[in-house]
Formats: sequence, C-alpha cells, structure tokens
Amino acid sequence: MQEFIGKDFLLKNETARTLYHNYAAKMPVVDYHCHINPQEIYENKKFADITEAWLGGDHYKWRLMRANGVDEKYITGNATNWEKFEAFAKTLPRAIGNPVYHWAHLELKRYFGCETPLNADTAKEVWEFCNQKLQSDENLRVRGIIQQSGVTTIVTTDDPIDTLEWHTKIKEDTSFTTKVLPAWRPDKAINIDRAEFSDYMSKLSVASAVVIDTMSALYKALAARMEYFAAVGCKASDHGVDNVVYAPATEAELDAILQKGLCGEPITPHEANQYKYNVLQFLGQEYACRGWVMEIHFGAMRNVNSKGFAALGADTGYDCISPANNMPGLAQLLNDLNELDRLPQTLIFSLNPGDDAAINTLAGCFQQGGVRGRVQQGSAWWFNDNITGMVNQMTSFANLSVLGNFVGMLTDSRSFMSYTRHEYFRRILCNLLGTWVEEGAYPSDMQALGSMVQDICYNNAMAYFGY
Amino acid sequence: MQEFIGKDFLLKNETARTLYHNYAAKMPVVDYHCHINPQEIYENKKFADITEAWLGGDHYKWRLMRANGVDEKYITGNATNWEKFEAFAKTLPRAIGNPVYHWAHLELKRYFGCETPLNADTAKEVWEFCNQKLQSDENLRVRGIIQQSGVTTIVTTDDPIDTLEWHTKIKEDTSFTTKVLPAWRPDKAINIDRAEFSDYMSKLSVASAVVIDTMSALYKALAARMEYFAAVGCKASDHGVDNVVYAPATEAELDAILQKGLCGEPITPHEANQYKYNVLQFLGQEYACRGWVMEIHFGAMRNVNSKGFAALGADTGYDCISPANNMPGLAQLLNDLNELDRLPQTLIFSLNPGDDAAINTLAGCFQQGGVRGRVQQGSAWWFNDNITGMVNQMTSFANLSVLGNFVGMLTDSRSFMSYTRHEYFRRILCNLLGTWVEEGAYPSDMQALGSMVQDICYNNAMAYFGY
Amino acid sequence: MQEFIGKDFLLKNETARTLYHNYAAKMPVVDYHCHINPQEIYENKKFADITEAWLGGDHYKWRLMRANGVDEKYITGNATNWEKFEAFAKTLPRAIGNPVYHWAHLELKRYFGCETPLNADTAKEVWEFCNQKLQSDENLRVRGIIQQSGVTTIVTTDDPIDTLEWHTKIKEDTSFTTKVLPAWRPDKAINIDRAEFSDYMSKLSVASAVVIDTMSALYKALAARMEYFAAVGCKASDHGVDNVVYAPATEAELDAILQKGLCGEPITPHEANQYKYNVLQFLGQEYACRGWVMEIHFGAMRNVNSKGFAALGADTGYDCISPANNMPGLAQLLNDLNELDRLPQTLIFSLNPGDDAAINTLAGCFQQGGVRGRVQQGSAWWFNDNITGMVNQMTSFANLSVLGNFVGMLTDSRSFMSYTRHEYFRRILCNLLGTWVEEGAYPSDMQALGSMVQDICYNNAMAYFGY
Repeated sequence: MQEFIGKDFLLKNETARTLYHNYAAKMPVVDYHCHINPQEIYENKKFADITEAWLGGDHYKWRLMRANGVDEKYITGNATNWEKFEAFAKTLPRAIGNPVYHWAHLELKRYFGCETPLNADTAKEVWEFCNQKLQSDENLRVRGIIQQSGVTTIVTTDDPIDTLEWHTKIKEDTSFTTKVLPAWRPDKAINIDRAEFSDYMSKLSVASAVVIDTMSALYKALAARMEYFAAVGCKASDHGVDNVVYAPATEAELDAILQKGLCGEPITPHEANQYKYNVLQFLGQEYACRGWVMEIHFGAMRNVNSKGFAALGADTGYDCISPANNMPGLAQLLNDLNELDRLPQTLIFSLNPGDDAAINTLAGCFQQGGVRGRVQQGSAWWFNDNITGMVNQMTSFANLSVLGNFVGMLTDSRSFMSYTRHEYFRRILCNLLGTWVEEGAYPSDMQALGSMVQDICYNNAMAYFGY
Repeated sequence: MQEFIGKDFLLKNETARTLYHNYAAKMPVVDYHCHINPQEIYENKKFADITEAWLGGDHYKWRLMRANGVDEKYITGNATNWEKFEAFAKTLPRAIGNPVYHWAHLELKRYFGCETPLNADTAKEVWEFCNQKLQSDENLRVRGIIQQSGVTTIVTTDDPIDTLEWHTKIKEDTSFTTKVLPAWRPDKAINIDRAEFSDYMSKLSVASAVVIDTMSALYKALAARMEYFAAVGCKASDHGVDNVVYAPATEAELDAILQKGLCGEPITPHEANQYKYNVLQFLGQEYACRGWVMEIHFGAMRNVNSKGFAALGADTGYDCISPANNMPGLAQLLNDLNELDRLPQTLIFSLNPGDDAAINTLAGCFQQGGVRGRVQQGSAWWFNDNITGMVNQMTSFANLSVLGNFVGMLTDSRSFMSYTRHEYFRRILCNLLGTWVEEGAYPSDMQALGSMVQDICYNNAMAYFGY
Repeated sequence: MQEFIGKDFLLKNETARTLYHNYAAKMPVVDYHCHINPQEIYENKKFADITEAWLGGDHYKWRLMRANGVDEKYITGNATNWEKFEAFAKTLPRAIGNPVYHWAHLELKRYFGCETPLNADTAKEVWEFCNQKLQSDENLRVRGIIQQSGVTTIVTTDDPIDTLEWHTKIKEDTSFTTKVLPAWRPDKAINIDRAEFSDYMSKLSVASAVVIDTMSALYKALAARMEYFAAVGCKASDHGVDNVVYAPATEAELDAILQKGLCGEPITPHEANQYKYNVLQFLGQEYACRGWVMEIHFGAMRNVNSKGFAALGADTGYDCISPANNMPGLAQLLNDLNELDRLPQTLIFSLNPGDDAAINTLAGCFQQGGVRGRVQQGSAWWFNDNITGMVNQMTSFANLSVLGNFVGMLTDSRSFMSYTRHEYFRRILCNLLGTWVEEGAYPSDMQALGSMVQDICYNNAMAYFGY
C-alpha cells in the first residue's frame, strides 16, 4: 500500500516513479491559464487564516459543502471563518475520490508541512497549525507560495478594458522574478445577449478611445486594446463560449444586430449566434496576425440555478456541463480561418468529457508545418480536472495525436495554493507513461521518456506560447 | 487467481477485502426501486421450477438468448420449461463478461448452494438440483428469499390507480417483518401521446372520484391518489420519461391539449411536450410538499422493434438507449421547481452512460442546507448495471460530488432472486474505495471507510427516503 | 516489466498469456473489410522501399507527421523517400501511446525481423535494413506478406461500377490460395448531394446497361450490378454514411429528387436525406434477399479542412468525428426493414466512441432465431482502433450482448503490412478475457475460453459472412 499522499502517491510502478522523481518533479511551472488577481501578487498578500486562503472564492469547495447539506451561511454567508473551516473539514472525509480531497491534502503537506488528514476530529488542530504558519511564515504570503512552487510564468485572465496596471507594476518590480502576463478574454464584448452588453460597450469605447457604432468601429476598438495588451506581454486569448454555432451574416446584418445590442433591444438567439460567430472569426484572424494563441472553452450551461445566481453572481458554483454537439460550429470556424490563412494556434477545451476524441480528431485536420500541435486539445478542464478526466484526456490525445507535443497542465484556479495541481498532473502523467512502458508498449528508454515528460510538464507550453 | 465467484470475487486488494467482508457484507438491504409483484410476496409464491423463477419475465435474459440466435419459441414461446432452460444454459457461457453471467452464478451459489458453472453440459444437473430445492426448501419461496437476503425494505413500482391491496395485506401480516412499500409511477397519466391515454383517464377518474375535464381537475385527481399512496407508506415517486423537454404553456393551452387527449384526438409532439413538462412540474411541487423523493429515469427509446412489441407488449426486451441531450430540459425543470421553493429531493437516472458527468454537475447546482445530496445521480441503471457502468457512475459521482452521500444500489428487477445484485454492487464499491486507499489517495482509516461503506450500502438510502 | 513489443506484449496475466499463445496466435486471419488494391495482389507488387510500403497512402501516419509540425513536402510532397522516412522516424518516438507507434514496431519485428526501435538516431539503419530486405526477400512482396500472415480471406471495398477484373484474375490463379473477394460499396450512388453524382449515374448506366431516369430504373441498375458482384463471390455491402437520418418520401418525390440529381441541380439537405434513406432501405432489402451482410459506418465529418481536401482529395487525413445522434434514424431503418421481413445481418460502426452502448442496445432489439448476433456492433473502427477503443467496444459488447458471437477484427487498411493489427487485437482480447478470469468472473475453463477466443478471432466472421 502506498503511503497516504506520500512520496509515491499515484505512482504504481518503477518506471512511473523514476519518471516522476528524476524528471517531472524537477521542472519549473508555467501556469498558462488561471484566474488569480495580480494585485494580490504585487501587494504580496498575507492570508488572515486558512479559510481566507482556501474558501474565499473557491467554488469547487463550495459545491462540495453544498452537496454535503451544509447551510449557505457556512459557505458564503456570515458564519465565522472557523465555523466555515469546520464545516469544510466535516465535509471533506466524505468526499473520497474527489480531487478537492487530494488537492487539500497536497496543499496541507506541501505548503504547511501538515501531515494530518483533515476531518471533524482534526479540524481544530489543523486550523491552529495552519493559521500560525500563515501568520509567521513569509513563504506563505502570495509571492512566497509562487516562488517555492517553482513558478516561472503566470498568465492571468483579463478583460479588454483592464488597465493591466498590476501586471505593469509587477514587471517593474525587479525583486520578483516570476513573469505575470495577461491573457485577453473578450467574453463581455461577445455576449451581446447579456444585460450588461450595452454598458460594457460604453466602457470599451472609453478604454479604446473609439466610438463604437458599427462593426468596423468595434473591431477598431478591440484591435486598439489588443495592441495595449501586446505591449504588456500578452500572447494568449481566451474565450468562454457556451456553445460554438456557425451562423454567417453580412456586414449590414451584423451592424444592425450590434445597433440593437448597443440600445439594449432584445436579440434573437440566431442574431446572437451570428454576432458571436463573426466576432470570433474576426478575433481569430487578429490572433493569427499577432502570433497569439486562441483558447476556446465551451460546453458549459452557466448559472442554471437562478436563485443562486441572483444571490451570489457568476462563478459561484451554479454551472454545469452542456453536452451539446459543438463540432460542426467549431470545424467551420477553424476552416474559415484556415481558408483565410489566418488560423492561429488553437487550444480547444470542452466541458463535456465525451468530446475528447472528437476534439482530438478535429485538431488533427488543422495542423501545419513548423508548429508542433498547432491545434490541440487543452488539458482536462474544470469538472474534468481529476484523475479519470486527465487519464482519459491524455489517452485520447495519445491515441489520436502526438502526446509528446501536449502543452500540459494549467490550474484555471482562483487560489494561490493550487500549484500542487501541477504535481498531481505530473504524477498522473508519469504513471500513465510508466504503465505503457511496463506493459511493453514503449521502450524503457529513460532519456527519451524523461525528455518527453519534461516537455509536457514545461518546455512545450513555453515554446508554444513563446514565453 | 481468484476463485470463480468465490469469497474474494472482484476484490483485488487487501483494503477492498476488509471493507467488503467486515463492513459491507453485514449490512441489511433496502431495495428502493424494483418491479416485483407484491401479491407474490403476500402469497409467498413457490416456484414450479427454475425456469419460472429465472426466465418468467426477465428481459435481460431474453435479450441474451435472442442475441445468441435462440428461436423465440424457446424464450417466450410454447417450448417446455426444460427446453427454455437448456437454451439459456447453452447461451450463458458465450456471454462472458455480461452481468447476467455473474448474476446467474451468484444466484445459483447463494440461493441454491449450487457451485456448478452453468453450461450445455451441466444444464440437466443444475436443472434437477435447483428444481428439487425449489420444491423442498421453504427458504426458496418468495418470503424466504427476501428474508435470507437480509432485505428490510422493498419499494415496488405502482400505478396511481392501483388499489395497493397487497401492500396493505402484507403490512397487516405481522409474521412478515420486511416492509413492502409502494412507489408512485404516474407515467400513464403523463404519456398523453399513447393510444391508451383516454381510457386511462377514465380509470383515474373512477379511482379518484374526480371528473377529469380540465388540468385543475386532473391535478385534483392525482392529488387524491397521492393522499391514498401516502397513507400506505409511499415516500417515492418514479418517472420513466423518454426525454425531458422544456415546453412552457398557459393553462388554457394545457386544457385544450388535455381535451384532445381525452377525446383520443391526435396530439402534436410539441403539445405532448407541453403537457408532459407541466404535469411533471406540478407533480414535482407536490412531492416537495409531501416530502417524497422524485426519481426521474430518462434516455430510453422504447419498443423500437414494432413487430416484437406487437407480439409481446412493453418491457419485453425491445428498448434501447437514446443518447439525446436532456440536460437543458432537466435543468429548466429543476430550476423552475427551485424558484417556487418546491424542489423535492431528486434522483436522476439516464440510460445514456455518457451522461454521468453532466448529471453530477447539474445535481451540484441544486443542493440545499440540511439534506445530504438533495439532488443526486442514481445508481447505474438498467443497461448500465454492470461492472464498468457502476465503476464509471461511482467514479463520476466521487469526482464531482460527495460519494459518501450516495444512496447506493437498487435492483430495478422483476425477479425475486436478484438481491445478489446488491452483493455485486457492494463488491465493486469496496474494490473501488480499496484501490484508492492502496494507491495513497485516502488514509487507511478503516473506521471512516467502513462507516462510509455502510452508509452507501444501506444507511444513506434509509435516511434519504425516510423509511 | 514486459519486453518492448515482446512475446507477452499487452498480456498482463497467466490466463491471458495462455489464451493468446495457445489459442489466438494459431488462428488464420479473415480480413473482412479493407481498402487494399486487388491489382497489387494479382501482380504481386514489390515495394521499392519502406516509404512506399508505409507512407504511400496511409493517412494515419500522415496525420501524425502533420501533428508533429512536419511540412507537407515531407508527407505527400516532393521530398525524397528517404527524407519522408526520416521525418516519420523523427515523429514516431513522440507519439507514445499511439497505435501507429505499436503497429509500426509490430510490422518491423514481424515482417522485417528488425528489433530496433525507430527514432531519429536509428532511422538510417532501419531504412537500409528494411530496404535491403524488401529488395531481396520474396516474402516481402504482397503475396508473401499475405501468406506469412496466415490470411485465408481478404474482402476489399469496391464500387458498383467496378469490373472486379482483378478479383476474377486472382481467383483463376491457382498458385495463390488466399480468397480475395469484393464488397459492395455504393456510396457514390447514394451521395446525391455531391458534385460528381450526375457523372457517376452515367457510368452506372453504362455498367448496368440500364437507362437511369427513375428510381425504379436506378434500383434495376443497382440490382444488375449486385448480381454481377455476387457472381464474383460478394457477400458483404458497406456504407459510409455521414449520419443516418429518417426521411420518408413517396416514389413521386424520390423520382423528382433523382431528376434534380441527374441534372446537377441543387438538392436541399432534406431532399438528400429522403433520397439517401430510401435508397438505403431498398438496398437493405436486397441484401436480405441475397444473404449479404449490411455494414453501416457512420459518424464522420469528411473533408473538414477544405484547403487540404482541395490539394489532396478525399481520404487524405482531413476527416474527424461527428458526435451527432444517429440512433433514431438507425432504429427506424432497422425497424422498417424488419417490418418487411427483410432485415439483413447488419454490422454497425460509429466513429463516435460514445455510441458503443447505444449501438449494442439497439442491436439487441433486432436479433432473430437461427443467426448468432444477427445485428451487432463492428469492431472499434478507424479513430477507435486503439487499445482503449477496442477494450471499450468489447467491454460494452460483453456488458450488453453475447461477446462469444462477436465477429472480431478487420484492418480497414490501405496497407498490406497491417495484418499485425489482428495480432494487436488478439492480444487485447486475450488480456481482457484473462483479466476477467483472474478476478473470479469466469471459470478458468481453458477449453471453453480457448474455443471462444478462436471463434472471435476467426470462426465467427467466417460463419457470419458465409465465406
């Protein structure tokens, strides 16, 4: 039996253990997509207690507590931080097999040096132990966490109207060597069917100094902001689209739809699809010209619990998987861009785990000389970020493409302690490759294997994005 | 190598074996959803031979025989019982890996003490051995089977117009301590697009003493019958819906659709969806008020072989999986009920195994303080009731929710000998948890693990339904 | 650790090893569906070098090279054969886990006796070693490859207008004992929405000596060609349909649609579906009457990269998986044919791996006395032809049907060296069954198991098709 989250956690054979300990564990981290707040890096935030560090904005943990019947008071409500932590500690042991179970204990061990499994009985002890460390240990402030995790590069997720003030300040602070770069996430400019669209366009006008009254003006405004982002080191875009639907339109039609959106008039679903598809197509071309990577995340139904959304807003744990068929729309988008010779490097993420094979086969249709894995599936995302999700995604990638070109893991996280997810991923990767070697499916050539592991852990992403 | 369906069948490591033998095996059984006939319990039915016990109404076995090229004469036709048994015995060994293979041998071992693998050569010997036991052993009459299986609670599936006569009689018979409770299955009142709808409404009128001429009268009639069911101990509803489609309608529209249905006039698919969605929404509210659990089973295409259906009727082995996308309709239904503060505890079952993750993420959006796993995925159902189906369902549940709250297994069976499916499930559960412990993903805390296993095997379901 | 693609490659337990070495490995091969050129068999083609043998028309390998960023010049362009081989050799080691990695090394070992793992360092050595063998060894000409692979029966894929000249010549050549039979693939007569339809109809007219101006004339023409195919030993049809959509039509409607197609006028998607569904239904009846097997392959989006298609044509690596829901259309087709008592034996293949369970349950609705597995899922196809794809397909088949009746593997290949894929399949099959025995789920009855393995490897397909 392996020790609980011990040295050889998840590593079931000798090759896996060698690959992990001698190759993967030594690599630095590039976290090419996350949702952390750069201000907190600049200010080197210190956490008041483990509840602030762990439960402040982490909807993964909130959903677990809700599923365990915990009252919202102890999740996002006005209970004390100790009460919240205790409620979480009571939930956790029942969540056997859940990645949060593994992540929480990895974080306790790696950041706090706390070896105690968390449960109702140990909650007080862990609470006091961790809080004391948070108070006294500089390494548990934000910059210390980042540095001890070996993170060389962090890519945040930013709105086109963002000033990127904190990215700039971090860059100027030579005492901190980790690069913190923005990624361009223009969802608010695309979601013409949301109530806040009109307001957002006003803000975008101001930020870009372009009066947005036509599509061409909108494109000018977006391009101006892309220039701005590029100057701060942006190399990646990110799109959170519910579903990708092909809906062609003339420029006149699009101008009319935009007008409605600007005036807050109702938009039909078809009009919304037309607008969204065409803006996406424009942006894709821009990314290609600028050498940016296009990341597309789809397959979510958002805010399905309207009471919960009304109470807490977006990204609070009320989203789920939408298993619609996005492949025709996505194939059309990639082909349209390819016909224009403007298909950027593209990472595709679906929330539906059943899409792995379809994505990998679609990606295989749009490769190109000179770039390894120009279009490829991104790592197992969000609800798929667990052992089975990662094993299935990597196995599908290997079955249908060249796994050695995979750009690997990201945290997608809102928490600074989540870099242990890279460790989790690396163990799963090494175990997968090690198992193949042990069953005779690849030579036991540790140099080739070790170098492939290091590529997937770090080098591929750095080369792919050009960081 | 493990002994064939021996002591450690499916238990591949030490932790798994300890969890099964020391914890799971000792728990009683609650079979919270099945299709057995309560009259046969009351009358303590004695089986004439093993063909009657095994092949009388079991479409799982019929489908296997058909797939093996057996003529219908030997399945549902006028062959002798020995001929039918022999045809089954010849089929079985070719069905390696099929759950029926495992179930049949579990039943031979546990109920008959017959250790002989069934095949063409042993058919006669097994036939005689089992038939002799069925004749002589009181423990192989229906009540004996139930009692030796440790079943404390059986929940049947019943039509709103059912008199529940046999449930009442069993309750009054103090010599039999297993509780036999009805579940409310109002499919016939919902399927307005079936030929028998109009007739059924007449019968429901009589049973409820309500003239059904409008939706409000229909709701009154249904409510009256729910009262009646509640008085006999009903705590659960059950819906077999082909697909869940959101289709709002006004009361006037619904009244008009109902009128058509009452007159046997043709109903359009959209009208049928409107009627079905709204009746489901009404019933969901009623369940919430009464503290009943709502079970929704969807994703089947029924009676796709129209010749087979014409010859033998429904539930005779001519149904298959419909992989349509039910998530938007289901999300809307849950949200509508939640908005009304009338979302009952809900168990969701899809026949499409690809729905596991989507269901678990949707369930996670509708939890509530005070109930563990208020909305949750039910156990691997029907065509998914096999090792991979169960492992995938539980792994997905664990990945995306709190597995410790899972209400566990049911038989969904028409056969009294199918309680061994609980043993089968428990072995798979213990092996899954044991494997996680062995790979270092959970502490080897046998008290916590054992208690979680016992919850999933029995305690959770009892608490969830309030039996 | 198992030796790299050694004796016990993929065989993880004793039962698996016994089943493979003592039973599976000894069986001959029937390759009941492939795309090789019978002329090359007749002429006993000799390969100039390993690039011609391996990279001439194999889009699996092309896709890998593209995914590795190789320029098209080195794939299908005007680079030298050595340069192409070197580019492939540099790609291959990065494609860990990909079936092409395993196939390539199986082929090097089994046909060339080359034990060197192929990579950038060994490319030159392997190139020279293999080319020398190709020049000197008669066993590496096409007939030698077929004979040393133990292939008794090869079924090619042929157009209705094909003369089948080479099949006839091979049959007449008594020095070659492997049967080479045609399969009937009438896609061009069905795809009325493709540009070449009208031209094709002219050719079909000529080939059949029937003027095609109505549906009934078309059916006469097709029937005439079926007669012709039957005379050359055809027993199987094959349909590559994008998706199966139910679309009934009157004969007059169909005549009008056909007229449009003959004149090259635009066809609406609905009209195309009507035409396709009805021709499929006609052909299905014909197959039933003639005792032919109907093979249906669906779930592909073809030529999604329009630039790539324009440059290289069809079947060059620009297709992907279409995860649409084909079950309603397919269920209707099977039921329509069954209602007419004209449902042929049918093999169903979907490119979407998520369809396994749905297909197996649908197949189970249309069985019939006298034929084992009359309707059944075909082996893991194309993008699913890998370890996980095969394990999942066989596990689903076993869960939901009688695995002992499975007709087993085909290569679907354009390459003569791909018979090692049967070895690959057999190892995976034996490991799967062996694992079940080792975990106590089937008796260790080597006679029953061995005979089942031999059925799945060879006997079932021979009996099913009647070869």
